[in-house]
Amino acid sequence: MKVDGKDTRPIWLEKEIETVRVIDQRRLPHEFVVMDLKTVNDTIYAIQEMVVRGAPLIGITGAMGVFLAAVRSDSREEFADRCRRLKASRPTAVNLAWAVDRVVGAISGENKKTDRINTAAREAEIIAEEEADNCKRIGEHGVALIREISEKKEGNVVNILTHCNAGWLATIEYGTATAPMYVAFDQGVDVHIWVDETRPLNQGARLTAWELGKHGIPHTVITDNAGGHLMQHGMVDLAIVGTDRTTYTGDVANKIGTYLKALAAKDNGVPFYVALPSSTFDWTLRDGIREIPIEERDPEEIRIIQGCHEEALISVLVPPADSPAGNFAFDVTPARLVTGFITERGICRADEGEILKLFPEKS
Amino acid sequence: MKVDGKDTRPIWLEKEIETVRVIDQRRLPHEFVVMDLKTVNDTIYAIQEMVVRGAPLIGITGAMGVFLAAVRSDSREEFADRCRRLKASRPTAVNLAWAVDRVVGAISGENKKTDRINTAAREAEIIAEEEADNCKRIGEHGVALIREISEKKEGNVVNILTHCNAGWLATIEYGTATAPMYVAFDQGVDVHIWVDETRPLNQGARLTAWELGKHGIPHTVITDNAGGHLMQHGMVDLAIVGTDRTTYTGDVANKIGTYLKALAAKDNGVPFYVALPSSTFDWTLRDGIREIPIEERDPEEIRIIQGCHEEALISVLVPPADSPAGNFAFDVTPARLVTGFITERGICRADEGEILKLFPEKS
Repeated sequence: MKVDGKDTRPIWLEKEIETVRVIDQRRLPHEFVVMDLKTVNDTIYAIQEMVVRGAPLIGITGAMGVFLAAVRSDSREEFADRCRRLKASRPTAVNLAWAVDRVVGAISGENKKTDRINTAAREAEIIAEEEADNCKRIGEHGVALIREISEKKEGNVVNILTHCNAGWLATIEYGTATAPMYVAFDQGVDVHIWVDETRPLNQGARLTAWELGKHGIPHTVITDNAGGHLMQHGMVDLAIVGTDRTTYTGDVANKIGTYLKALAAKDNGVPFYVALPSSTFDWTLRDGIREIPIEERDPEEIRIIQGCHEEALISVLVPPADSPAGNFAFDVTPARLVTGFITERGICRADEGEILKLFPEKS
Repeated sequence: MKVDGKDTRPIWLEKEIETVRVIDQRRLPHEFVVMDLKTVNDTIYAIQEMVVRGAPLIGITGAMGVFLAAVRSDSREEFADRCRRLKASRPTAVNLAWAVDRVVGAISGENKKTDRINTAAREAEIIAEEEADNCKRIGEHGVALIREISEKKEGNVVNILTHCNAGWLATIEYGTATAPMYVAFDQGVDVHIWVDETRPLNQGARLTAWELGKHGIPHTVITDNAGGHLMQHGMVDLAIVGTDRTTYTGDVANKIGTYLKALAAKDNGVPFYVALPSSTFDWTLRDGIREIPIEERDPEEIRIIQGCHEEALISVLVPPADSPAGNFAFDVTPARLVTGFITERGICRADEGEILKLFPEKS
């Protein structure tokens, strides 16, 4: 997508200099900084510290991390150990293991180091292009939902609520939840996005608001607390969120707080859609609430908030210095609260049978 | 309540020097500063800028503001105008109008300025003592709910979730939602409080955590997003919140986000109680969602977060400088999601008939 007129992706591979480059998303929107990843440890750091985040992007980063593992490893054992650590760097997003395994599989037949490196780079870039294409298709399918509401409202503004950042910064292009919004806006549909700030790391306020603003899409940042009130008062026509892992039965792990929005949507008859590429489906898990691992992160992410003060990024402590915090990073929204999924193959209800009808090769 | 061993209230009247003193709650927990209110304009500033907040405390501040109005006014017209502006300073908490009207009524028969001043001071202090007593009784009634769960859990820790600050800082002593927690803790019941940080002004992280910490009550600060996940996983036994205005039919206006927690409690079979003195009931409104005015506050309260950096209070901007925000301060939880009310007269279901049985003089 464009940043100040220049085509930009959140990650790219520079094979010649054996480097993966990423936008440091911790510093947005106040600073635009590119970080170089040279090793698997750099890659793990970038994933764990959320330099990069978002399930599809974590997957692509993992794929490119396998390229770095191939570059840096002199034995199969070293390589396997690096890939194992890479896969374990964050637990909730299923794309990470999926993408690492896929690149590892692609180079398993190669014996020469240069072939392994070249094949890993090629496969990682194929995954990135496929995910870009998936997001594009998610946008093309999802825009129908927005256009339908726009027509019902006789062209009046369609208010869409989203949580966290499931935008191009979380993928590679277009985003998942945001893809239908970009397409609708580009087609001239009048849209306005309610952006949940998304505590603790404020990916909504920092990243989604920045993305939408750069594209010129009208939006309003709200607290995570506000969505229920807005839905009660008819101020939300549609909710679209992303997901870090979705079971084939339709249970959706996503940024903590998604479940609360889904409850409010159900209570107020607001359609609640989840946008995802097929790489985010977990085809092995039945019961999301019991089976999807929920990451607990450093409580300091809650206690200390980063922002811009006199043109510098600084951090402030909010609660008393001696009050502990608990940082649950994701929650699981049961399928019964989800209206449907927007995938690269089309839209389906949140139901095992419907999901497998779209992806029959998985059944 | 005690602060570092010293009996402390969030407001007190010093009649001899014609001054109302309040703790500046905007600066807690990092600074403890007392502010002097000398005029009705000072009082309106303190209410609007949330130097003081919480429905019962706003009521007491309004009552003491009438004392200042009596001190400063040389005519009935001046006095009436000041009281009118005072009543209008915040729209959602019903206690403000109730308390102002009560003090105005108490002095309406007095003609001499000194009598008006003395009677206003006395009536305001009676209201403060009544509210302290109401909170004490709320604690005594509410503790039964906690003890019952403790017994069912064979003495294992009772996990209670609360939103915003409905503690002594929001009232005058004990608090409303916190009163049963203080009583339970003092009686030796093993309790642990999940404290919603409560964006945008973080009254949970700043004030509730500070209060509980000062009293030695185990607590954990969480994001507003986390409660649903905790309830799904059996980590919340009971939710207790306060309210800014509750209709006689049982609809509850409270800090934005309360509705989302009530939905999650319902979805997971967690009892959801609202603690309030009778001054917070609005005996004139039937339909909370349509009729209770919801204050919209300055969007900068969302965009800019205050905290402690190198021992100084400073503010940081989180979203992009040009992204707008919307600041809805309260929401309304419909009676159907509320398990019951804890009042100074006892506990009742959230139902018009049950509420009026406790307060038959209002029917």
